[in-house]
Amino acid sequence: MTGTAFDLPLEVLRARQNVKWRKYAPDVLPAWVAEMDFSVAYPIRRAIERTVREQDYGYPQRNGQNAELLLAQAFADRMQDRFGWTADPALVQPLADLVQGTFAALWAFADANDGIILQIPAYPPFHSSIAETGRRLVPHRMHSDGSRHTLDTAALEGLVDARTRVILLCNPQNPTGRMFSRAELLEIGRIAIARDLVIVSDEIHADLVYDGRRHIPIASLSPEIAARTVTITSPTKSFNIPGLRCGVMHFGDAALLARFRARVPGHMLGAPGIIGIDATVAAWAESQPWLDRVLVQLHANRARLDAFLAIELPQVKWHQPEATYLGWLDCSALRLPGTAFDFFHNKARIAFSPGEAFDPACKDFVRINFATSTAILDQILDRMATAVRALG
Amino acid sequence: MTGTAFDLPLEVLRARQNVKWRKYAPDVLPAWVAEMDFSVAYPIRRAIERTVREQDYGYPQRNGQNAELLLAQAFADRMQDRFGWTADPALVQPLADLVQGTFAALWAFADANDGIILQIPAYPPFHSSIAETGRRLVPHRMHSDGSRHTLDTAALEGLVDARTRVILLCNPQNPTGRMFSRAELLEIGRIAIARDLVIVSDEIHADLVYDGRRHIPIASLSPEIAARTVTITSPTKSFNIPGLRCGVMHFGDAALLARFRARVPGHMLGAPGIIGIDATVAAWAESQPWLDRVLVQLHANRARLDAFLAIELPQVKWHQPEATYLGWLDCSALRLPGTAFDFFHNKARIAFSPGEAFDPACKDFVRINFATSTAILDQILDRMATAVRALG
Repeated sequence: MTGTAFDLPLEVLRARQNVKWRKYAPDVLPAWVAEMDFSVAYPIRRAIERTVREQDYGYPQRNGQNAELLLAQAFADRMQDRFGWTADPALVQPLADLVQGTFAALWAFADANDGIILQIPAYPPFHSSIAETGRRLVPHRMHSDGSRHTLDTAALEGLVDARTRVILLCNPQNPTGRMFSRAELLEIGRIAIARDLVIVSDEIHADLVYDGRRHIPIASLSPEIAARTVTITSPTKSFNIPGLRCGVMHFGDAALLARFRARVPGHMLGAPGIIGIDATVAAWAESQPWLDRVLVQLHANRARLDAFLAIELPQVKWHQPEATYLGWLDCSALRLPGTAFDFFHNKARIAFSPGEAFDPACKDFVRINFATSTAILDQILDRMATAVRALG
Repeated sequence: MTGTAFDLPLEVLRARQNVKWRKYAPDVLPAWVAEMDFSVAYPIRRAIERTVREQDYGYPQRNGQNAELLLAQAFADRMQDRFGWTADPALVQPLADLVQGTFAALWAFADANDGIILQIPAYPPFHSSIAETGRRLVPHRMHSDGSRHTLDTAALEGLVDARTRVILLCNPQNPTGRMFSRAELLEIGRIAIARDLVIVSDEIHADLVYDGRRHIPIASLSPEIAARTVTITSPTKSFNIPGLRCGVMHFGDAALLARFRARVPGHMLGAPGIIGIDATVAAWAESQPWLDRVLVQLHANRARLDAFLAIELPQVKWHQPEATYLGWLDCSALRLPGTAFDFFHNKARIAFSPGEAFDPACKDFVRINFATSTAILDQILDRMATAVRALG
């Protein structure tokens, strides 16, 4: 019930210049965009503060080499340490953010109107990356089996036609919180090989897992799968530094990278700023103890939310996410006249993410971000319950 | 002779993790990559320190809008205030750096093997942006007329063939320090219109000008020239923050931007980190007084270098740059057996930029960066003179 070492008080959060706390009116509690209401890990702060104190803003070098090489090595070390996956630092392209990586991969590995398979519901920038690059969405709908959202691998192969080029995977999945199993991932890999597809796998939520689970990078499953897999990740989600803009995309073999470079010359993607690189290296190399403590809090929040919904709001259904600090709330039993987002925004003064942004068919859903203090989470839950009770 | 308020002492410079002070052995004085040995303007430091103190690393918002919109507005305000040019914030694409913008523009406005006219000698990344995108360099050689390097506009039109698509301009020019005159720019614009070329104009040195000159953005000359001009700039050079990675490219009209977007979707270029954006806005909006003081120092350094070369090293010829803190030193009268870079590196323990990186024909040239303290500049000059005298 009491605060943690990394909880930020409400007045500090309200003073921030981030979109989470600024987009909506001051009386609205934000539970939408995926960032956490927590302070940043000490090693990250220390790394940034050194550069700031020394005004060391020149063309950066780290450990006698280009700073981007240190970033690539930190990524490979992290993948080895956490997931037992041997990634190659020489096959890393630095990014500003994962949306950039998704756009670039779709641009490189598909042509106009080519099909992109995407599990639905999906993070809105996946929809826009397909639409804005002129590619064609091939929706692969996930369904609740009563205990979780399942990936229908049997249906997947039937979606592939002669113009399908990419499976755009988000694993762990946003917004359902599913972590795909080894069997599911192997089946995706088998289909990709059989039908000559590239797998673009956004694994940004891989650190935010519960119940002793361990994330499986799809590229780690076999050299054949790796050879057609682009893995995109960043510490910005799990270490709460999205404004610093730093991430990586990794190509599972040199030929795949060469195909990419023929469509997207390396320097066209720019390069992260040194503050982003330093923060990323400090996050991956030194900040796991902080993340372990954060996960205790997130795990408690998930349980608190689950119990509250079961007891106080049984009309709102969810499955506890296996990963992510996001919950996909099915409010269809409330039989709301408009969208669930509008109901909670107008009647409870809470800003969730609107379900219809993830899937046009999901206006009765909202996505909740529960990465906040117990005190703020309790306020959100109280406001939800009060608004629902007022429905009569 | 004494230091300025923004000079950094040698031991601080040697402690930095930047490529300028780390690439070469510790006994080498660096006078190469274009950054300054000066501390950063107070408004920039204050902007960064606020974000760092509040750990405000979430998805950023500034003044109730996306932070990139503030960046675009700060650019337009700066262009209006300094150069009387009305740029449109709606036609701005944020960049990590200008090399990214050059790659993207060549990718968008030319096809493989299409011709790109470039004034030679040229900043090495211009050469690589043409080579790595598979475009074809059409060299437009600048010549010394005894007092400065001239742009032969009469020869320019003769270089254009049916496959020429872009004039890649660097104004003020690096490494010659030329600021192109209104007449020269108008002639470039006339040829671009007559031969349907896009002008890609890197104007990053526009703030670093001497003798009361004022930079002329080529896009400011007429709506017809603007309609085919991409202007690329950043405060990283003049405000000494290249490691923070933030810049902009501006399209002279909406149709030109639409042509670009058809080849380079917006999100593919990523976005600068919030530290880079805040620093840029603070630089452009609040840091001119700092830059005015820096220019006094740079002007004095330019005069000191000119006098020293005339008196002590008459075999080394240069023209005082009209802009930039870079000098293009012609050492051919020294009749060195190898490159001028190697001579000064090996015999004087100075790292200049090698002339042959700017033009393969220029191995007898080096580029000097004179943006340092009087004390360090004097050491560089002493070492040069001692090494040359030892030639006998």
